Amino acid sequence: MAFNETDLLANRYNQVRGLSVGLAEGLSDSDACAQSMPDASPAKWHLAHTTWFFETFILADHLPGYEPFDPRFPFLFNSYYEAKGARIGRAARGLMTRPSLDEILAYRRYVDAALLEALPAMARSALCLVELGCHHEEQHQELLLTDILHLFAQSPLAPALWPTGFHGPKASAEALQWVEGRQGAVSIGHAGDGFSFDSEGPRHTTWLAPHALADRLVTNGEWLEFITEGGYEVVGHWLSDGWAWVRHNAIEAPLYWRRDEGGAWASQFGLNGVTSLNPHAPVQHISFYEADAYARWAGARLPTEAEWESAAQCLDPRGGNFLDRAGAVGALPPPGGKPHLKQMFGDLWEWTGSAFLAYPGFRPAPGAVGEYNGKFMSGQFVLRGGSCATPRGHVRASYRNFFYPHQRWQFTGVRLAKDL
Amino acid sequence: MAFNETDLLANRYNQVRGLSVGLAEGLSDSDACAQSMPDASPAKWHLAHTTWFFETFILADHLPGYEPFDPRFPFLFNSYYEAKGARIGRAARGLMTRPSLDEILAYRRYVDAALLEALPAMARSALCLVELGCHHEEQHQELLLTDILHLFAQSPLAPALWPTGFHGPKASAEALQWVEGRQGAVSIGHAGDGFSFDSEGPRHTTWLAPHALADRLVTNGEWLEFITEGGYEVVGHWLSDGWAWVRHNAIEAPLYWRRDEGGAWASQFGLNGVTSLNPHAPVQHISFYEADAYARWAGARLPTEAEWESAAQCLDPRGGNFLDRAGAVGALPPPGGKPHLKQMFGDLWEWTGSAFLAYPGFRPAPGAVGEYNGKFMSGQFVLRGGSCATPRGHVRASYRNFFYPHQRWQFTGVRLAKDL
Amino acid sequence: MAFNETDLLANRYNQVRGLSVGLAEGLSDSDACAQSMPDASPAKWHLAHTTWFFETFILADHLPGYEPFDPRFPFLFNSYYEAKGARIGRAARGLMTRPSLDEILAYRRYVDAALLEALPAMARSALCLVELGCHHEEQHQELLLTDILHLFAQSPLAPALWPTGFHGPKASAEALQWVEGRQGAVSIGHAGDGFSFDSEGPRHTTWLAPHALADRLVTNGEWLEFITEGGYEVVGHWLSDGWAWVRHNAIEAPLYWRRDEGGAWASQFGLNGVTSLNPHAPVQHISFYEADAYARWAGARLPTEAEWESAAQCLDPRGGNFLDRAGAVGALPPPGGKPHLKQMFGDLWEWTGSAFLAYPGFRPAPGAVGEYNGKFMSGQFVLRGGSCATPRGHVRASYRNFFYPHQRWQFTGVRLAKDL
Amino acid sequence: MAFNETDLLANRYNQVRGLSVGLAEGLSDSDACAQSMPDASPAKWHLAHTTWFFETFILADHLPGYEPFDPRFPFLFNSYYEAKGARIGRAARGLMTRPSLDEILAYRRYVDAALLEALPAMARSALCLVELGCHHEEQHQELLLTDILHLFAQSPLAPALWPTGFHGPKASAEALQWVEGRQGAVSIGHAGDGFSFDSEGPRHTTWLAPHALADRLVTNGEWLEFITEGGYEVVGHWLSDGWAWVRHNAIEAPLYWRRDEGGAWASQFGLNGVTSLNPHAPVQHISFYEADAYARWAGARLPTEAEWESAAQCLDPRGGNFLDRAGAVGALPPPGGKPHLKQMFGDLWEWTGSAFLAYPGFRPAPGAVGEYNGKFMSGQFVLRGGSCATPRGHVRASYRNFFYPHQRWQFTGVRLAKDL
Repeated sequence: MAFNETDLLANRYNQVRGLSVGLAEGLSDSDACAQSMPDASPAKWHLAHTTWFFETFILADHLPGYEPFDPRFPFLFNSYYEAKGARIGRAARGLMTRPSLDEILAYRRYVDAALLEALPAMARSALCLVELGCHHEEQHQELLLTDILHLFAQSPLAPALWPTGFHGPKASAEALQWVEGRQGAVSIGHAGDGFSFDSEGPRHTTWLAPHALADRLVTNGEWLEFITEGGYEVVGHWLSDGWAWVRHNAIEAPLYWRRDEGGAWASQFGLNGVTSLNPHAPVQHISFYEADAYARWAGARLPTEAEWESAAQCLDPRGGNFLDRAGAVGALPPPGGKPHLKQMFGDLWEWTGSAFLAYPGFRPAPGAVGEYNGKFMSGQFVLRGGSCATPRGHVRASYRNFFYPHQRWQFTGVRLAKDL
Repeated sequence: MAFNETDLLANRYNQVRGLSVGLAEGLSDSDACAQSMPDASPAKWHLAHTTWFFETFILADHLPGYEPFDPRFPFLFNSYYEAKGARIGRAARGLMTRPSLDEILAYRRYVDAALLEALPAMARSALCLVELGCHHEEQHQELLLTDILHLFAQSPLAPALWPTGFHGPKASAEALQWVEGRQGAVSIGHAGDGFSFDSEGPRHTTWLAPHALADRLVTNGEWLEFITEGGYEVVGHWLSDGWAWVRHNAIEAPLYWRRDEGGAWASQFGLNGVTSLNPHAPVQHISFYEADAYARWAGARLPTEAEWESAAQCLDPRGGNFLDRAGAVGALPPPGGKPHLKQMFGDLWEWTGSAFLAYPGFRPAPGAVGEYNGKFMSGQFVLRGGSCATPRGHVRASYRNFFYPHQRWQFTGVRLAKDL
Repeated sequence: MAFNETDLLANRYNQVRGLSVGLAEGLSDSDACAQSMPDASPAKWHLAHTTWFFETFILADHLPGYEPFDPRFPFLFNSYYEAKGARIGRAARGLMTRPSLDEILAYRRYVDAALLEALPAMARSALCLVELGCHHEEQHQELLLTDILHLFAQSPLAPALWPTGFHGPKASAEALQWVEGRQGAVSIGHAGDGFSFDSEGPRHTTWLAPHALADRLVTNGEWLEFITEGGYEVVGHWLSDGWAWVRHNAIEAPLYWRRDEGGAWASQFGLNGVTSLNPHAPVQHISFYEADAYARWAGARLPTEAEWESAAQCLDPRGGNFLDRAGAVGALPPPGGKPHLKQMFGDLWEWTGSAFLAYPGFRPAPGAVGEYNGKFMSGQFVLRGGSCATPRGHVRASYRNFFYPHQRWQFTGVRLAKDL
Repeated sequence: MAFNETDLLANRYNQVRGLSVGLAEGLSDSDACAQSMPDASPAKWHLAHTTWFFETFILADHLPGYEPFDPRFPFLFNSYYEAKGARIGRAARGLMTRPSLDEILAYRRYVDAALLEALPAMARSALCLVELGCHHEEQHQELLLTDILHLFAQSPLAPALWPTGFHGPKASAEALQWVEGRQGAVSIGHAGDGFSFDSEGPRHTTWLAPHALADRLVTNGEWLEFITEGGYEVVGHWLSDGWAWVRHNAIEAPLYWRRDEGGAWASQFGLNGVTSLNPHAPVQHISFYEADAYARWAGARLPTEAEWESAAQCLDPRGGNFLDRAGAVGALPPPGGKPHLKQMFGDLWEWTGSAFLAYPGFRPAPGAVGEYNGKFMSGQFVLRGGSCATPRGHVRASYRNFFYPHQRWQFTGVRLAKDL
């Protein structure tokens, strides 16, 4: 890595690290400490854990004589890297009232200073870990937002993180059109020089049957129709596990939808507080089970991840509604011409019908960072494309996100597919 | 379907129905009533539910004037066919002390007589349902055995269903060899005239990367080595969900293994009671999590279902160690020549690394029977090949069995695979 | 104990042991094996456990050379006597399909023969244990009935143990009258030569404030009024724990009440099957929480156990509606004169407002049988007087039964009390 | 109430309100927000709920034209007063990151100013509620401390609320002596003009059998002996529910005891952080189950509440080790002469063997405040005497505290009793 490359990396590091701090502006010490469910983590924990990553995998391992900020922090802020020692129980993260948010911000500054000073002399292997750490932190930026949203949704006061400016995925009133996909042998998976997570590769051949993808995401208006027609009450639409989930949790609408006093679904809670339901906006915060049931009700199905990736390979992954800075989502340039795929990147993560499994020839990254993805390869489904809470530039056509089929506190949506 | 075909079907019906009754011989009224866990069903329930299937989908639907044996039975013995009305809660099946086993056997005779009398005049669509019902009952024959085994394993008296005769999967002392599989575009899925379940089709193209399969199943001796080397204690071998399962349930060996007084794993419980562990016999009653962890420890992986099916297409699915009659497992003809695949059919269901999902173009069968498989397409993994408790003739190369990754009370085993 | 006394004891033994077998007539092997909830035990288990008591505490301990019926039975049929070795998990009792009911009946005959032969030569300490064993078995006779009732109540077939003959507590259409109780220092607790359980003593002084007891039990008709007036919906009637129980379990009526098709409470399930609700019959199968809430709603309270015992001391404990033989409940002789207490003995166990705690100077019986009562002295409430399922002669004025405040599968009822 | 009395009440109000704020000094916004278990509440919630009490029951009900600080607060800070409207779920209190601690302190100042201004003109009934509110707040002061202690005990950083000054109950190295109690008819319960909670009355006669009380609390050293002799491992010492609790939770020592690196019990965590175990200090943070098991092991029993109160009636309830101000516990004047009872008031709440039930003639206070105590009269045991975390002056001889038998995060201890 040449000198210029190191400069670029330092710039990138500063930009990523700065965005995290920006996202936490407006949070009180308590806001940053509370944990609203075991799946979520406190904002403070995200800010500290991402810093711990740089301190542990880079400074401690590659900078001789590095003095840790606080020797107790590794125990507090390790997540699931079993190879790096004991950890605090996941569900108890919200009880860590100390260190305070201010102390965590000081921890961040300490590590930032040490890392930026050490960067020019670092070995290439360490620089690659810095790059990985930036991508890792971008993931946690989105999680920080979804976790704060979930926390604030529990509050009777319904606080808004960003009362103005943030509007989530963009609305579109156009009728759905079908776009035919490629058939036969196609190549998917990451290849080339750029960064990717281990589970995105290796690049390999797969075979696509004739199919088409919807040109846009399913909207709130369409979802209301699904509800009106008994979508949540007809067992035949649902997977067996999905139906059990619906019944056990009395699910009757997307996660943050709220009723008006007359009982009608009229608004939703978001990072900008409670806003009225826009029928043309994409439906969000739905589980895989709901996405799958909707598709069956609509006479369609979910795309496979190979269908999605094959279609996305010709699109610019930096375009679309992504998070550009705290509170702001960038505009999507208007596309033109014949039927084409909209909202593929940004807006909402799209559930696919593919289980998150290893690609042929997959090998986990060596060392502790190799715990990253491979260990989650059971029971989860793949989502593609990023969301309005994903930092712009974070995702690629080959990017594989994954969650359990009942989870829906992420910015998730659904695009239909069908066999031809 | 010509007259001869009807005769053949009647023969097949008699043979299948007779085997079920044979399997239940030796069970007391209580043995046939108890339910040892929610995943399992009482033997009596299996005997009644399979009969309910013929009564409901064939006699009631296709035989004008048919008088049901008891109008209350549909409520008692429906399983998950939501379209066919209310059902008794799954976990409460063991509380149905009445009707008695004797009454259920009378119910079977009543339905058998009606069906056999009606068979010659039945429409083709009804005859297809009879065929389906026979396959359905064969599935429940294996479940009846695995559920009784689980029940008897809870008993301090360790009763044996078949004290003699049944020996489970066959032992083999030969060293493992690797057999290279096909590459590139291959066709899998069911095609042709024979019976198959809806999820086995449609036949379609898929793409195989270079790989090899082990020529035999993993043995008890090899598994003991895995345990000795800390297999159940090293987090790095395990999927994240698998590790949580191991810890939460204090798992330390296959399901029915037992220690001697010195604490060593020395015997296992089976349908023939407690027998000493044979190091050359295939290891059985393991979960997907265990199979996957073992494979990772061994530097290998599980086969995909496409790899398995592609390799099995040239083998005779009626060969191998299957259940031929109550208590008896047929012998495997000795194969000859160069490295080749053994134990593919029969012996033990083989976990694959493939999630149970729809094939391209999959359409559930119409009507209530269409609830059969499609609704289970989340969270489960595919197993292939049948077991020593599967009635001979029940499985095919395209046959897809599926269970959750933690389940292991079925006759499950593991065959290794690797990338080339 | 003189020769005549031994004869009397043998008679009593035969009578008690015979009643147990009589109660189990009409049960199939499965009926006797199933366990409908952890609080309940299989009928077979009651039959075996009471036999185990005689075999373990008397034959094994006091008869040199006694050969046990089956050396594995102690493990199977010990209940909570920790001092007597390991036990099978309580919730797994329903999985003991073997030994069969027939084998248990043979076990009973074997022990009966050995005990009756040994009785004439037994030491007085052993004879006292025989007496204790008879009382112990009488307790289990009532439990056998309540557990079978609970099991049959789960069945969609609603089987009746005794289709005719058994009618439970007797109805009375008379208006409630108050009977003033004694005041000041009174003596309660068992004294004298007769049998009692350790927790009934020692006899001691306690102090009663001015109070009155209702002359009869609360009726179904009165309870319907409680329901109609929102009894189960107004938090103010309930203890905090009781309200949580009502909400969590969606309680809205006594345990075995059933609605008609119009939704009205119209019938109840009992040992004689489903019968219509008699407004004049005592309400039964209610929890302490319900009894307490009803009393508060009625402007009254529950009696203390000292108030109840003090009032009962002048009544004949063998009078009243008790179990005389399988299926039959004896008649209550009509009382005469001024206001007096009815239904004190028999009919239904009456919840008191007293926690089950040690009397002053209480000492548990020595040895393993001393585990009998003292260990349950937290969290339970005292019930008094016996029920229509209690064998006649089993209870006394000093008899203390006890259950947790949420339990209601026993034959429980409520008598009001008030301060004067 | 004359003018002077109003002045006195204002002084008392100021003193109580000031102490609460003092206790919260040293807490960060997060410390004051987190909830470590459902039994506990956030410090912020205690500060707000006690203020809500004054605002709701006094200002809103008795001060015409009073403008609430924030109309949303009643929903947030109601506790269990069902009569006063809906409440936030108890387990979700820790998710109320807003309002902040600073806002709550402003809320307190607002209510304090309004109340003090209104006080001189208030009706006597309102003044009585002010008095009640002060006692209510004193209860929450102790809970605030026990809840913060429990929260900090979860932290790997083991923070101390009061690093110096607070030393908990006082140590004493003297041998235990027995002090005989009164016998026969005695009067207990509150009488007279002073304040008391409804459950302390009415005063009534009860009867005491011959007995003696230990002159001091059980010590850490004595408890270590109990542990060494297998106290937590011998089922015979334990109540049945207690043994289940020990096993299910793997209990092996008092709540905040900690082992040294060699595995020996060497220190305990408290409001002053981790300190070494003083063998002469009273053992604290034990459950009723533990207290009861210890007493049984020691050949003694727990006192009844009547025995305790009868003995305490001649002692000064303001003497002893109580909380005098944040971080400080007052000294106990040395007693002299013959065997006498020490540590009766202050130091630690003493478990009694009495269930928390209504006294004869008990009537709950009218209105919403009447929900205060009566609804908890099932399943809990009485504790007496106050602790080092109880504000001095809060308790009386008749004062009844109550907790479930498994709870031990309060400052609880044990004094032995025995029959004579």
